[in-house]
Amino acid sequence: MSDDIAVVWGDGEARTPLSAFDAALADAGIHNYNLVTYSSVVPPERSVTTVGQVEAPYEVGTPVGVVRAERESTRPNETVAAGLGWIRAREGGVLMESDAGSAAAVRADLREKLADARRLRDWDWAGDPELAVHEHTVDRTGAVVVAAVYGPLAEAREAADGRR
Amino acid sequence: MSDDIAVVWGDGEARTPLSAFDAALADAGIHNYNLVTYSSVVPPERSVTTVGQVEAPYEVGTPVGVVRAERESTRPNETVAAGLGWIRAREGGVLMESDAGSAAAVRADLREKLADARRLRDWDWAGDPELAVHEHTVDRTGAVVVAAVYGPLAEAREAADGRR
Amino acid sequence: MSDDIAVVWGDGEARTPLSAFDAALADAGIHNYNLVTYSSVVPPERSVTTVGQVEAPYEVGTPVGVVRAERESTRPNETVAAGLGWIRAREGGVLMESDAGSAAAVRADLREKLADARRLRDWDWAGDPELAVHEHTVDRTGAVVVAAVYGPLAEAREAADGRR
Repeated sequence: MSDDIAVVWGDGEARTPLSAFDAALADAGIHNYNLVTYSSVVPPERSVTTVGQVEAPYEVGTPVGVVRAERESTRPNETVAAGLGWIRAREGGVLMESDAGSAAAVRADLREKLADARRLRDWDWAGDPELAVHEHTVDRTGAVVVAAVYGPLAEAREAADGRR
Repeated sequence: MSDDIAVVWGDGEARTPLSAFDAALADAGIHNYNLVTYSSVVPPERSVTTVGQVEAPYEVGTPVGVVRAERESTRPNETVAAGLGWIRAREGGVLMESDAGSAAAVRADLREKLADARRLRDWDWAGDPELAVHEHTVDRTGAVVVAAVYGPLAEAREAADGRR
Repeated sequence: MSDDIAVVWGDGEARTPLSAFDAALADAGIHNYNLVTYSSVVPPERSVTTVGQVEAPYEVGTPVGVVRAERESTRPNETVAAGLGWIRAREGGVLMESDAGSAAAVRADLREKLADARRLRDWDWAGDPELAVHEHTVDRTGAVVVAAVYGPLAEAREAADGRR
């Protein structure tokens, strides 16, 4: 796996919301790691790439840093949507999470959040916001997830070492 | 402490839910670490052992990775129950969390979640699901916790190094 | 930045609660890191210092361990307050989080939680509890945050190495 931050997504159905979430993580290829939630800043040296699904890049049980948006529902026929949006600058980037009852609502919310994030930072912005949004109509108990995979916590340390 | 993932549990009472949770962590022996929540996968080389309580295996303030289930209540005489269940395969293992109003409800929920987790992974499963469930009847403000202690975040990195 | 744990605070306004929280983090100087939540124990060798705001001590996107209290509201003229309290002993220290509708309520809650935390540990306590509380009256959508910044996850490992 390259040094890019991989944006992945998935949906799933199961008998409980937690199991449906597990199924959605499996659909995205990240169900076999110990996910640790990051608050959502992109280091300047890393790109963000939408890949949809990762194929077992790390060993089972590896602690992996992620930014994620998710939504679960136990109501048949309800739509669940989640998404991430990001915007880059020379100094770094910002990721925003959103979940709602439709992909359109997630997109509108992400655009608003990214505009706010941009206003807040006096950075040299490059390019337009990018969005990755996924929606799912619930059969019985369903979940949807979109995640930005930063990679193993261990490598965050190696990167820090390399900069010294 | 061995390389096993230790499953511990405890309950506590205090004047606020957060303090009751702190007391429950103390009862389990993990109140003096900085707990970082993992999403619940077991690496293939590690066993899971129910030990009930750990006795100060790390220095105060060490960041420690855990999977945990908890429940608090401020209603006297209410029962709070939490539990973890896990199932192992040659490729690794899966832990599931649950909390409910009784140990029986937690057990039923965990069995369902583990069956779903198993269906989701094409792994070479070994043995039956194992459960660790703890319940507590609230006196004034009470909490119950069950946690799987993976150990210091630092050692996750050393393990990763060792595998290279 | 010294080895002290820095307590910072801020408030912010934006069009969504998440963006207002981002603005509050910016006000505290910690909006450009990937915050990882710790459960709130202070190692014996570290001091806790109230600094209000940090000035870019780490590179953008660094995973940083924090204990935090926050509160958001979308109701104009509502007051949101958050705070941390801590107490030190020879063996280490304990931080407690609180949020409420006023700084006075946060302070009362923190004192109660710290008294409980102290009762729970048979430690050689030194000094009185210290509190850092911040409140904000919402204009449209507002947030307040108080955080204890432990520093990069990476350095937690170096400290662990150093102790061996």
